[in-house]
Amino acid sequence: MVILGSTGSIGTNTLGLCSKQNLDIEALSCASNISLLNEQIAKFRPKFVCIGDKNLKKDVKHERVFVGEDGLLEMLTLTKSKKVVNSLVGFAGLKPSFLAQKLGKTLALANKESLVVGGKFLDTSKILAIDSEHFGLNFLLKKSPKIKKLIITASGGAFYKTPLKALKYATPSDALKHPNWQMGSKITIDSASMANKLFEVLEAYWLYGVSNIEAVIEPSSMIHALIEFIDGSTTAHICGTNMRLAIAHAVLDRVDEVLPSVDLLSLKPLKFYPINLKKYPIFSIKDELLNSPDLGVIINAVNEVAVFAFLKNECAFLDISKAVLSAFKRFRDIKISNTDELFLADVEARNFAKKLLKL
Amino acid sequence: MVILGSTGSIGTNTLGLCSKQNLDIEALSCASNISLLNEQIAKFRPKFVCIGDKNLKKDVKHERVFVGEDGLLEMLTLTKSKKVVNSLVGFAGLKPSFLAQKLGKTLALANKESLVVGGKFLDTSKILAIDSEHFGLNFLLKKSPKIKKLIITASGGAFYKTPLKALKYATPSDALKHPNWQMGSKITIDSASMANKLFEVLEAYWLYGVSNIEAVIEPSSMIHALIEFIDGSTTAHICGTNMRLAIAHAVLDRVDEVLPSVDLLSLKPLKFYPINLKKYPIFSIKDELLNSPDLGVIINAVNEVAVFAFLKNECAFLDISKAVLSAFKRFRDIKISNTDELFLADVEARNFAKKLLKL
Repeated sequence: MVILGSTGSIGTNTLGLCSKQNLDIEALSCASNISLLNEQIAKFRPKFVCIGDKNLKKDVKHERVFVGEDGLLEMLTLTKSKKVVNSLVGFAGLKPSFLAQKLGKTLALANKESLVVGGKFLDTSKILAIDSEHFGLNFLLKKSPKIKKLIITASGGAFYKTPLKALKYATPSDALKHPNWQMGSKITIDSASMANKLFEVLEAYWLYGVSNIEAVIEPSSMIHALIEFIDGSTTAHICGTNMRLAIAHAVLDRVDEVLPSVDLLSLKPLKFYPINLKKYPIFSIKDELLNSPDLGVIINAVNEVAVFAFLKNECAFLDISKAVLSAFKRFRDIKISNTDELFLADVEARNFAKKLLKL
Repeated sequence: MVILGSTGSIGTNTLGLCSKQNLDIEALSCASNISLLNEQIAKFRPKFVCIGDKNLKKDVKHERVFVGEDGLLEMLTLTKSKKVVNSLVGFAGLKPSFLAQKLGKTLALANKESLVVGGKFLDTSKILAIDSEHFGLNFLLKKSPKIKKLIITASGGAFYKTPLKALKYATPSDALKHPNWQMGSKITIDSASMANKLFEVLEAYWLYGVSNIEAVIEPSSMIHALIEFIDGSTTAHICGTNMRLAIAHAVLDRVDEVLPSVDLLSLKPLKFYPINLKKYPIFSIKDELLNSPDLGVIINAVNEVAVFAFLKNECAFLDISKAVLSAFKRFRDIKISNTDELFLADVEARNFAKKLLKL
């Protein structure tokens, strides 16, 4: 690899990475920080170096020292590396960018002026941009590295701002007041208890085959999902609280405009909060459920029985999570190997719930 | 298309979309909201309908009315549609999901219980999930619709919190104090004047061939880029302020762990602000520059001359943007057709700047 501008912030970071990965450095250049250049020469043993200020040439501890713009271009022509990191400052980076592409080398470009000034005359399809914004765009546009974790968000439901103590007396009409989404009564209750998010975690497990799934509260319900990648990148999906978007992608062959774009400037501050397991005890079994996804049938059956009992004032709000957690304990070792066993487990779990809730 | 649960929130939204797109509805089902079902029958003229409550059958204005779970499965078997939207509530959605897949139909699934309970026995690769979180995950994981706009973020630079009036007296050492990034002096000054963001907009234009590019201020510098898609989705790229990530993707063949993932729960609230053109006048030429990208060479040359003059205390901070805006006016009609003209324009622009700034 060739690194132009090796003593600057991008250059030193690049050398840090190269050192970790034992990558070969064929040539280095800098303007005038000769003491750092000498350290880099000692460590990476490049074949060629180039400096900007000819008066400093005598201080450089290397046998092949090129000088100035012409020297830089001459050096570049002599290199055999396939990749050139151009982190020169300003217009001075342009000619080396042109030459690198002419020589068939791949340009890892931190010198943004090359594009600002000469984008028209560069083959941008072959440029790897080193700029956090363009890296971000590229990451969002193109394929990405290995997935580390899926994260879905929760609004916190009707009781997000309700004190823990008051939950004991929560009525169906309290629980049906969802702050952000207009939905049916079953799912609105499930949002209030966080059962809905527990279900969605399991849903994501089946849909994407990933076991590392987390949920966080994002009270405005504008960010719906995030993905953490192994490299340290996180991506987020943002849209208004309107189901038509997800529906359109599921039922239409070609999706054009469905919702207006989110107006970033009018968004409330986006903040993530942990799910409080004291308030949402049902969510405490998330990891165990991901390890034993066969238990989905059990928690669903018990939750269904309890939610409909709660809606008919036949049990209290907190009884829903209590029943689910009891069933989870009771049926912990269940294994489901076919659909007959599935339907049987559903019946068993419903009977368990009815008995427990004295229905 | 078949819509199971047509009178609920997902069902009515789906019919709304179908109506706009003139999609055929072959069958509808609901539990007991017969008045709405009758409206839907009148409008969409489905071949079959099914209701949950047999006592209400006489009220349904249709000749082929099926009843209950068995009726629903029988109806589904008779349909020829390739797609079934399952928005039934709870466990009742499971058997129809199984049957739909057995019949070779594509399942557009809003009934999350099908996966929670029976994910093990469904072919999840053929399911289109209707759930905002899973839609979001899918959007982030797979290919997406047409791009509407690219958005890059700015921190606001050293003077983000400085009152407009004080900018007049800003010194190089003031301008070199960037709040989030440790970078070289040229780019740090460019961040303070917003020239850096103007350059990055033009850079993105050349890299991605998109002309609709905006920049917004995100003071924490955790979100680096966003993309608006035509359907109403927006995606965001989030990572720490460390250039190693972008560098790693540009120089390494295989990127594994580079940075730790962002800890969402410890992030400060994320908020977007517009770029104040009174404070950052240089950014006012953004749209014109995107229309006349040949002017990149001019604004870069003048900016370079002015920034280095500012760093040597030979001009004031606000002279940088004044010089750039004057040059932009003066050279507005320039056309660059080859690299000789490019280098010539650079020299001309530098001379213009030196004269203007009396250097």
